This record gives sequence, structure tokens and C-alpha cells, in this order.
Amino acid sequence: MFEQILENVAEKTPLVHCITNYVTVGDVANVLLACGGSPIMADDESEVEDITTICNAIVINIGTLNSHTIRAMHRAGKRACALGHTAVLDPVGAGASGLRTRTAFELLDEIPFTVIRGNISEIKTIARGAGSTRGVDADPGDAVTEQTLDEAVRFIREAASKRSAVVAVTGAIDLVSDSTHTYIIRNGHKFMEKVSGTGCMLTAIIAAYCAANSGKELEATAAAVCAMGLCGEKAFARSGAMGTASLRAAIIDEISLLDAKALAEGAKVELR
Amino acid sequence: MFEQILENVAEKTPLVHCITNYVTVGDVANVLLACGGSPIMADDESEVEDITTICNAIVINIGTLNSHTIRAMHRAGKRACALGHTAVLDPVGAGASGLRTRTAFELLDEIPFTVIRGNISEIKTIARGAGSTRGVDADPGDAVTEQTLDEAVRFIREAASKRSAVVAVTGAIDLVSDSTHTYIIRNGHKFMEKVSGTGCMLTAIIAAYCAANSGKELEATAAAVCAMGLCGEKAFARSGAMGTASLRAAIIDEISLLDAKALAEGAKVELR
Amino acid sequence: MFEQILENVAEKTPLVHCITNYVTVGDVANVLLACGGSPIMADDESEVEDITTICNAIVINIGTLNSHTIRAMHRAGKRACALGHTAVLDPVGAGASGLRTRTAFELLDEIPFTVIRGNISEIKTIARGAGSTRGVDADPGDAVTEQTLDEAVRFIREAASKRSAVVAVTGAIDLVSDSTHTYIIRNGHKFMEKVSGTGCMLTAIIAAYCAANSGKELEATAAAVCAMGLCGEKAFARSGAMGTASLRAAIIDEISLLDAKALAEGAKVELR
Repeated sequence: MFEQILENVAEKTPLVHCITNYVTVGDVANVLLACGGSPIMADDESEVEDITTICNAIVINIGTLNSHTIRAMHRAGKRACALGHTAVLDPVGAGASGLRTRTAFELLDEIPFTVIRGNISEIKTIARGAGSTRGVDADPGDAVTEQTLDEAVRFIREAASKRSAVVAVTGAIDLVSDSTHTYIIRNGHKFMEKVSGTGCMLTAIIAAYCAANSGKELEATAAAVCAMGLCGEKAFARSGAMGTASLRAAIIDEISLLDAKALAEGAKVELR
Repeated sequence: MFEQILENVAEKTPLVHCITNYVTVGDVANVLLACGGSPIMADDESEVEDITTICNAIVINIGTLNSHTIRAMHRAGKRACALGHTAVLDPVGAGASGLRTRTAFELLDEIPFTVIRGNISEIKTIARGAGSTRGVDADPGDAVTEQTLDEAVRFIREAASKRSAVVAVTGAIDLVSDSTHTYIIRNGHKFMEKVSGTGCMLTAIIAAYCAANSGKELEATAAAVCAMGLCGEKAFARSGAMGTASLRAAIIDEISLLDAKALAEGAKVELR
Repeated sequence: MFEQILENVAEKTPLVHCITNYVTVGDVANVLLACGGSPIMADDESEVEDITTICNAIVINIGTLNSHTIRAMHRAGKRACALGHTAVLDPVGAGASGLRTRTAFELLDEIPFTVIRGNISEIKTIARGAGSTRGVDADPGDAVTEQTLDEAVRFIREAASKRSAVVAVTGAIDLVSDSTHTYIIRNGHKFMEKVSGTGCMLTAIIAAYCAANSGKELEATAAAVCAMGLCGEKAFARSGAMGTASLRAAIIDEISLLDAKALAEGAKVELR
């Protein structure tokens, strides 16, 4: 499972244009290199179309958006889609401010994203037009658990259908759906919550995996979600006791060491 | 000493809005998670009031200020104070440029900060309207030493009184004062100077500790200063010989591992 | 070889003003401290002249340029040169967008840079007015190899002559030339490509080394290039098997541990 996905990434070295927040941007660049892609960050309105054109995918992450970068996101996103590139949205903090919620909707209205990845509260905000949040973290009341799983699967299918995109909701249990099929993924470790940027990094990996696997976006996204969770498990086993900065480095380390065989063996995936 | 301070942080998980420089922002986010808080970074004028409103504290760090973020700092700071939130100022490089010095004064005139933390040169600039500096580092001629300690204690009391805030001056010897009481803290290791961002990280930890300990801001600030120094010592003991990047990671690691008992045992504090 | 260069850095602790991209800025700050310098980042047009004035060198890195920071680059660069400071240009991604190429030329036309450092594709773009690129990476077809070395040496001499600057081209084989003399450097490890920011970090180290060795810019630049490559080798030997995040930290660690003797022993340098 997922072997071909990883082999295609290794073979194609997809170049990913990121318009992303400045908090986790260095980790995003490093994880893209680690997973077999190549990053380029550019957010000035007057160059983003040039940059997008030479890339294979775009990531739009609204984590530290401002009026200048919002304009760049629209221009780059439209160009990427016109060229048939993978386009991935990470609506960081949608629901936490009017600007973020509004920007997420405006981007979704203009750009046919390939994949949307967020926590459950962000995706609820996007899918239903309203949602609760705790800053950039999910509202604990929204959490996907074994008890709420059936309802969550129905919700993500509906969200994917509404947005005609692959939707990935990540948390203790991860869900990836294209509305027809839904992957339920139980990889990951709860200590990953203590590391800033695991969501942003995953979004970038999804972009690289999808760009190298055109037509297999659902499977590529699920592979990326599994890879991140599995590498979090491996990182915790190796470095968790040393503290959270060691855990953060180990997650990127493990992404750089991951191969198709290890992913196939470690993936905890159910397909509905 | 300080046990209750840490327990309150662990219990409340304070959400801290940071308008901070892009050099150390990733470390600031990670150290906030490590210390038991939760970060959100947002610096666009049109969303900072929304974000501040859902948080428990704000950090304003002028390390890479620009005309846009300065406006956001004013709006967010005023809102935070109107809501009774903890507000912490880190006047990075005050004295190094006219813009930084002027911005620090304008922020101080409009916003009744709970805590101001800086190196001795920055705090002299703020307290006296003039000061020397070496970029973002203190002027060695200003250093607080055992020889200049009495004078430094008088100075920080006066600075705290003038600004009606808790003032923290960090260096080889750290001082924390609310004008009536002054903590003299001798934790820390000189190699911490070789790691970028220890000051910015400490400022964020102060915000988290104070937000979880309303009414105990002097003690909470002193606890944060001790925690950072003690974790620097532990980090050096564990990783100092490996180099400065290992030291940096180990500082954040140790913050994530610190508990009330270890802080009580390791704190080197004198109260005057 | 290079012993005096490093001793001068240690003695003078050069203060380096960086207008640099937000992707690798934290690593740049940390590597400057590690190599014996001191960083200050400032990119607002209204303060950059103040900041440059108190520094010993400036780095201008166009990795995430925008219209505001471009104006700041011009003002700071002109002031630095008027004061006789070391000025180093890193034309990240020149050739990848019209804005980057145009900005690089405009900066070169106005500011007499001391050193220009880039990958071979970026330097070809600057020297010849046109070049290919793969995002922020060199076009593999441009690579300097043992087979193309003679031609590459001719090219870099011509580029250095045209720009009246020391030019450093880094890749599998590194070249440093002032048009009269050219260093050919064979330090480094291919896994350094999997770490974001090694180029940006090297540019900053060059600035620190040159600022502490006025009149010896060719030798200081070559020393910095050797130092980075040698520390990459040491880092790989120590941490390469752990993954790319460990490798990244180890590179900065090794820079912080490097002394003149180790550099003299490890440098693989040929002077033509």
C-alpha cells in the first residue's frame, strides 16, 4: 500500500511553491526536502505567477496572512489551477478571526483546490460556514474519536463533496475523503501536539505527494497523512523522552529516512 | 518556591497571541508549547483584535518591526489591556535605531504593559530615554555584575516604578522588580549567548506564566526567568559540548521536561 | 592556511546586518553567532540605515523579497558601501522570476558589493543577463564538475571582473575568485543539499569573515566556503545517518566548534 506513491515522489522531485506562514516556514522547507520534494517560498504579488509556473504544486497556508500575501495567494492559486497543478489549502485558524474565515472562503470560491487539510474545527468552519476553534488548535469538543467516528466520516464526505476536493482532517484519528471513499488513519502520537508546525509540514508533504501522483490524489493524500503519523510514532520512540525540540527534529529526520517498505508496514489504515 | 506558578500554567494552558520577530518566531512557538501554553501568531492590523480577544495574553516583540506590524501592535495591545489580559513588551534593539526607540516609547505611552523584559541596555533606553547598545545585544559597559548589583537594583526599581510594570532585566545576573520587591536570579549559563532567541523565548514564557497566575505577576515573571536560566544550565550540561544548535534544541527540550520540583530545587533566587 | 582569518573573527565579533529571507533567517542568526559574529535583522526602510551604520557588514539575500524590503535593500546597501562596510549579495532564485532577476541587477547597478555568492545558475543569470534555474536550486545542466572545471574557472573570473567583486559559486565543487586568483574548493558533502539554508548560512559567514579581515576578502571568502564544506563533512560523519534535521543542527554545531587548526587540516583547496 502506498509504495508506488513514494517511488513516484523520489523519481520526480516535485517542486512546491509555498505561500505559507513565517512561524513554521523553515520546517516546511526542510520537510519538503526530507520527503523528496523541493521547496520555493515566494509571496510577493508581482512574482508569484512566475514562481508558480515553474513549480509542480502550490501550498497556500493562511497561518500569518496579511493584505499583501492574500493578494498573492489569489494570483498564485488561480495560475496554478489554470496550469493544472496540484493546489493545497491549509486554512490555519479559520474561525479564529473574521479575516481568516473570510479569506478561506474567498480562496475556496476562486480556486478549485485539489486538497484541503486542516484540523476538525477549521474544516467545520469551511464546510458549514461557522465553527468554533481554540486559536490555531481544534476545539476539544469537536474531536474525532472512536465514539464520534461514524458522524465524522459522514461530515468529511459531505465537506469533500461540497468543495469537490480531497479533504483531510487531522487529529487523534485522521480522515481523508474524496466524498466517495474515506481513509481512516490511526497513525500518530499525542505528543506531536507539543510540536509547532506538524500540520503545516503535513500540508506541504501532501502537495509533494500529489504533484508526483497525478490522478491519485486521494491515495497520495492518505499516504502523506500516514507517513506523517508513522514518522511521529518513530520520532517519539526514538526521541520523545528527550523533550519536544528533539521530537520535532526527529519527525523531520524520520520523514527523510522513510521508505516505501516502512510505510507499508507501519500504516494503520482503514478504507470505507 | 514557584510550584503553584507552574501548576497553574499546566492547568490553564494559556493561549498567547504573539506579534513577534520572524527570526526566532518558530522557537517562540515551540517554547510556548513546551512550557504548557499555546501560541498563535497574527500581525495583520485587520485581525489582531479578533485574535487577541480569544487569547489570554499578548507578547509584543519589536525585533523585526515594520510600519504595518507597528500599527497592529498598537491595536492588539490596547485591546488586550482593555480586556485585562497580560501584556508583555520585549523592546528588542531599543536604542539601536530611531524607529525602535520611538516605537518602544509610543507603545509604552499607549499600553499599560504588565511586564517589560529586555537586556540592560534596552531597559536603560526605555527608562532613561537614552542608552547605548550593541545591535540587539547589551553594551558590555552596562552589564549587571556583583560589583554593580546594588546600583542595578536601584535602577530596575526606578524603571518599574516609572512604567508601573514588572520589569525584567536579563543577563549574567537577572533582575525582576515591581519597584517594591526585586528578585535577583543567578541561574543561566554564559553559552546561552551563543543561541539566538533565548530572550524572545523567555518573554513568551513570561506571558504564559503571568496569564495563568493573575495577580502574581512579579512572582510569575521571576519563575519564568529562573526556569529559562535553569533549563539553560541543564541544556549546557547535557548538550553544550555538542555545539550551539544542540544547545538551542536542548533548552527547549528542558523547558518541556521542567516540573515544579526541579524548578524549586534549581532556582538560585534572592529576594530584596 | 586561513588561521589568521578565523582568529580575526574571534577577536572582532563582527556585527552583521541581515536583510534576508524568512525561510532560513533563524538558522542564519544562529550560524552567525556560531561562527563568532553577531546578527541583527532589520528590513524596514525607515530604520535600515540606522542599523547598518552600527554594524560591520551587511548581507542582502533576496530569497523572499517584496516591494518593501527591496527598497530597504537599496537604502541599506548604499549606506553600507558609503561607510566602507563589507556588503554581500545572495541572489537567491535569480532567474526564477522576473522580479528576482530585475532586483538582482538593480542592486548590482547601485551597490558595489564586496562579495556575491550563489549557485552556478544564479551567478550565470547575474553575469550573463540570462540563465536557467530550478527554483532556488541550480539547473543540473549547469553543474561544475571535474569535466567542466576549466570552463567554470574562466567563467567565474569573467564574472568577478565584470562585477569588480569577489564571486563565490557553490555546489559540488566550489569556486571563489576575484578575477585574478581563483580558489577551487572540494570540501562538502552531497547530503547538504537535503538541508534548507546552507547557502544562506554560508553567505552570512562570508560577511562575518570579510568584515573581520578587511583587505583580505578573497581569502576570507574562501575560508568561509571551506569552513562550511568541512563542517558539512563533519556533520554528516556525526549525524548523517540520523536524518536531515539532525544533519542541519550538526552543521551549525560544527561551525560553533570549528577552530583554525581544524580548518587548516581539513581544507581541500587549490589556488589557480
